[in-house]
Amino acid sequence: MKLFGYWRSLAAFRVRIALNLKGQPFEVVSTDLIKGEQFDPEYLKVNPQGVVPALITDSGEALTQSMAILEYLDEAFPAPALLPEDLMARARVRALCMIMVADMHPLVVPRIRKYVTQDWGHSEEELGAWIGNWTKKGLEAVEAHLTDGGHSGKFCEGDQVTMADLCLVPQIGAAMLFKIDITPYPNAKRIFDECMTIPAFFDARPQAQPDFPEDMK
Amino acid sequence: MKLFGYWRSLAAFRVRIALNLKGQPFEVVSTDLIKGEQFDPEYLKVNPQGVVPALITDSGEALTQSMAILEYLDEAFPAPALLPEDLMARARVRALCMIMVADMHPLVVPRIRKYVTQDWGHSEEELGAWIGNWTKKGLEAVEAHLTDGGHSGKFCEGDQVTMADLCLVPQIGAAMLFKIDITPYPNAKRIFDECMTIPAFFDARPQAQPDFPEDMK
Repeated sequence: MKLFGYWRSLAAFRVRIALNLKGQPFEVVSTDLIKGEQFDPEYLKVNPQGVVPALITDSGEALTQSMAILEYLDEAFPAPALLPEDLMARARVRALCMIMVADMHPLVVPRIRKYVTQDWGHSEEELGAWIGNWTKKGLEAVEAHLTDGGHSGKFCEGDQVTMADLCLVPQIGAAMLFKIDITPYPNAKRIFDECMTIPAFFDARPQAQPDFPEDMK
Repeated sequence: MKLFGYWRSLAAFRVRIALNLKGQPFEVVSTDLIKGEQFDPEYLKVNPQGVVPALITDSGEALTQSMAILEYLDEAFPAPALLPEDLMARARVRALCMIMVADMHPLVVPRIRKYVTQDWGHSEEELGAWIGNWTKKGLEAVEAHLTDGGHSGKFCEGDQVTMADLCLVPQIGAAMLFKIDITPYPNAKRIFDECMTIPAFFDARPQAQPDFPEDMK
């Protein structure tokens, strides 16, 4: 398969982890979101929304939106399962995913940063406060879900790696990159550390990608 | 079942349609997002994130996040199915959902409006431009997906009602409420009109909810 992604895209990071866990080899096509390569006419034919990731399957079809891709990979390659069997547990996992995928991440992507700083003329400091605010609010909700009810274990839902962990790791990684204090979220931090001992997660990290900038190494 | 929602919540609207389609009776608990009732300590015990909807199942468990709830309802009550059988079609449906659920809706919810107008002091006009910008960008992407590849039919994916339609209808309804011109999105508009002929959709509309304001009728 072929993955259009970018080293710092949290959504592409989720998909890389899933492909690694499923043992599916993939070729990465780096799409520089800062240079605006997601708006190249050739890429817009792949994904008219002009965002990454897009996964080209072996049959040549283009799949978009990271959560739809995770669900597809779990259906197409069932082992290891990324969702529990119990229906309530599945709902909890997906709800955790959505806090991060819908209520946190879309507020800090390049197109939003551009609108806030260029269209509205806010300073980098004000942008940082915006990013910090939504990251903290989201992580508070995630941590509450990981703490309440006692459903988390070694991972977000019991002792099985699920889609929730695939969403959590990029989000915590980004918070650390933005120098947001993550000590108020001990369960999230503990699960992040646990996941990072697994090669499928560790190898998918932004710093290990071929398009990670030399001057940030 | 019991649904914590609000007449103008797009996410609660999605869940109401699903419950109607599945023939599951439910009691609505109105949670006034403008008054801030989502932050009442009693509600935070149900959903620590302080957002609607939350669905209390007959066994008393609280499910949150509309997409997780739609997937749960589809697994718990399989008929009529809200996802196609074909894996690629399922991925397309979920991707359409995510454009709306992740990349459009979270940018216009009350907490964002509050930050934009109160924390940043932007005018109602500037807020309107923000809402209009993300609504249009999202609907352009949705329309492109409905047009390209020829997968849409009577509904977003062929002639079967799917989760994508449950996400599309509230989003188009909101665009009309915000007086955004939807004529550039003829497929989306056509599918909205088609869905609204189905009682499960029509009865779930904001205007039909008991908490819809008298002075807006």
